[in-house]
Amino acid sequence: MNPRVTAISPSLIREVSSKKKSSSIDLGLGEPSLLPNRAHFEEAMRYATQHGVKYTPNAGDHALRAAIARHYGYPAMERAENVCVTVGSQEAMYVALKTLLDPSRDELLIVEPAFPSYRKMAALEGITARGVVMREDADFGFEAESIAAAVGPHTKAIVICSPCNPTARVLSTGEGEKLARALERRGGEPVWLIHDEIYREQIFTGDAAELARIYPHTIVTNSLSKSNALTGLRLGWILAPHDFVTQAIKVHAWLASCADTFAQRVALHVFETPGALQEHAPWYREQRVGLIDALERTGLRYIAPEGTFYACIRLSSGVPSYDAAHELIERYDVVAIPGIAFGEAMEGWLRLSWVSSPDRIATGLERIAEYCFRNSSSSAATIER
Amino acid sequence: MNPRVTAISPSLIREVSSKKKSSSIDLGLGEPSLLPNRAHFEEAMRYATQHGVKYTPNAGDHALRAAIARHYGYPAMERAENVCVTVGSQEAMYVALKTLLDPSRDELLIVEPAFPSYRKMAALEGITARGVVMREDADFGFEAESIAAAVGPHTKAIVICSPCNPTARVLSTGEGEKLARALERRGGEPVWLIHDEIYREQIFTGDAAELARIYPHTIVTNSLSKSNALTGLRLGWILAPHDFVTQAIKVHAWLASCADTFAQRVALHVFETPGALQEHAPWYREQRVGLIDALERTGLRYIAPEGTFYACIRLSSGVPSYDAAHELIERYDVVAIPGIAFGEAMEGWLRLSWVSSPDRIATGLERIAEYCFRNSSSSAATIER
Repeated sequence: MNPRVTAISPSLIREVSSKKKSSSIDLGLGEPSLLPNRAHFEEAMRYATQHGVKYTPNAGDHALRAAIARHYGYPAMERAENVCVTVGSQEAMYVALKTLLDPSRDELLIVEPAFPSYRKMAALEGITARGVVMREDADFGFEAESIAAAVGPHTKAIVICSPCNPTARVLSTGEGEKLARALERRGGEPVWLIHDEIYREQIFTGDAAELARIYPHTIVTNSLSKSNALTGLRLGWILAPHDFVTQAIKVHAWLASCADTFAQRVALHVFETPGALQEHAPWYREQRVGLIDALERTGLRYIAPEGTFYACIRLSSGVPSYDAAHELIERYDVVAIPGIAFGEAMEGWLRLSWVSSPDRIATGLERIAEYCFRNSSSSAATIER
Repeated sequence: MNPRVTAISPSLIREVSSKKKSSSIDLGLGEPSLLPNRAHFEEAMRYATQHGVKYTPNAGDHALRAAIARHYGYPAMERAENVCVTVGSQEAMYVALKTLLDPSRDELLIVEPAFPSYRKMAALEGITARGVVMREDADFGFEAESIAAAVGPHTKAIVICSPCNPTARVLSTGEGEKLARALERRGGEPVWLIHDEIYREQIFTGDAAELARIYPHTIVTNSLSKSNALTGLRLGWILAPHDFVTQAIKVHAWLASCADTFAQRVALHVFETPGALQEHAPWYREQRVGLIDALERTGLRYIAPEGTFYACIRLSSGVPSYDAAHELIERYDVVAIPGIAFGEAMEGWLRLSWVSSPDRIATGLERIAEYCFRNSSSSAATIER
């Protein structure tokens, strides 16, 4: 078999999550707990009843492509021709990487901590990937200077997830501008920015950079998964300069033909309904208020989320996050994702999601705090890692 | 950009189809004209209303995987663990090729004439692909001996689409057995058979080989697209030995995460409804009767379809199929796919689909016959190619 495939280890996140019991408080979930708005589906059903679900063009239904481009209105990306509708943002990212990077010479720079998929995709494609790690002592905040300084002679693209899974940090407009200007100053072949915007509708700061507005060589990936509780619908898109989209469509076409026509009709209804992308946003804002209260009560070090529905908590010094996650499931009945799943930079941390009910989140955090304090006293004598 | 991507030429089939006018008789369509059964969607809607559309496991919903494996009951492929649910059979084939072949040493053998996607996928992956062409003077019927004889020292897999798009021929059980035995006699590393079964529910002969029943190193790809008029649903699967599926799931996971949950519920209802996979089969059988009549009336050489909803017609000697397809659209208002879209082996032929109404099919065929006879007399003096 293909050695690039056999070499890929299974997902640590899935492994930990699979240990969940029916009684568990699940702070591991990477998807909304809300139900999606039925109205979007009813419209798609009406369409399917009348027209069936035939192929759309490879790049997606023209009206949907136009609606997506119009909604974001990013400069030079405002037309249907700037959009390729994809099978969720996972395929969007995969197609973007495969289209843009020549494995024989190009390198991908990943701003870390990051969701493991970028590295796994690069490994599948034989693309060299390198991480540029944001500082733990700055709570993993995005720093343009260190990102730009990490660009090497073969760096073709930088992938940034902002709001960030797992750190819940958001790239500020100031840092975004600094990064764009630094890349422009380099000259030569442009370095592309791939902005994974999947948590765009869960931002709790007024200061979020939209890279496509400030840097022309930007490729945006996004989907309806997190904004509208439609993770299983697999409906995403690439938004990018036209020449790039033309090439990306070919990869998408031979890989998946087109995105699900039914899902595309759901998406069209979302984009044609004013405010629908933000229909769940008030719920997240309210959840976050309760979360911060509960986090404060734990007395633990945490990073207050600027975006996403995650929050990161520091474990006691020297405790491996993988062991902690297992002990939390087995002895405290709480599911949390070990930081190591997001690379070495997050070792010693847990990623928690806060999509459960407020009292379950509070109970889960109390249990984690109890575990941490017990562990901290018992491991006081162990050597710092 | 990735030179493997930029090197890929756009789809000739899509190019020709895009010339269609609103008045055109469309014999180019590669998808059913029927509407899907609404009952399958209603069940999925009930599910989505109650549970939303959350992620399923990467490999798909366990009940669906089990139902698919059970339905086909191929030896040693009868359990959920033998199935990976995919984004249509296009992604199934892509994942199968990417998982199985090591681009640095393995070669893919494609039984031709064939749908162009296999070659395009191989090109995208940097996999060496070679065709083994079935004989035109045998109406492109599958011949085990010539397929087996084409296997080389680096051949890792043979891809066979039966029933075949474009030839509408079906691999007989006798030829299938012969192929399996010939591959077994080779010894050494097994050569895999990848059986694209997408037209499995449109078979008009009692003698169709199911390779998974007669050869253990078989990977099956299929979908609901053609059987249930669900091309746009993008719901397919890989059915294969467990060790292979385990690896394929990793590729599928990082490429698409999972297939659409809504589509998976539609599929579960199909597989749980006795006879649903054959619900459109009587319509195709009836269409075929009218088609054969109409083909006979043209006086042209044609291949009577043993499967699929295509039929192939021979153009007059020396007429390039691409030119013929264009003239047919522009002067006769009929859309037909030029054989060259399926490789050199089909040059001089047209692929017609017969999913329109019987009278439109008959009219379309009359016009093609008129074109052919005019062309034949006017080009009688041209040199045979």
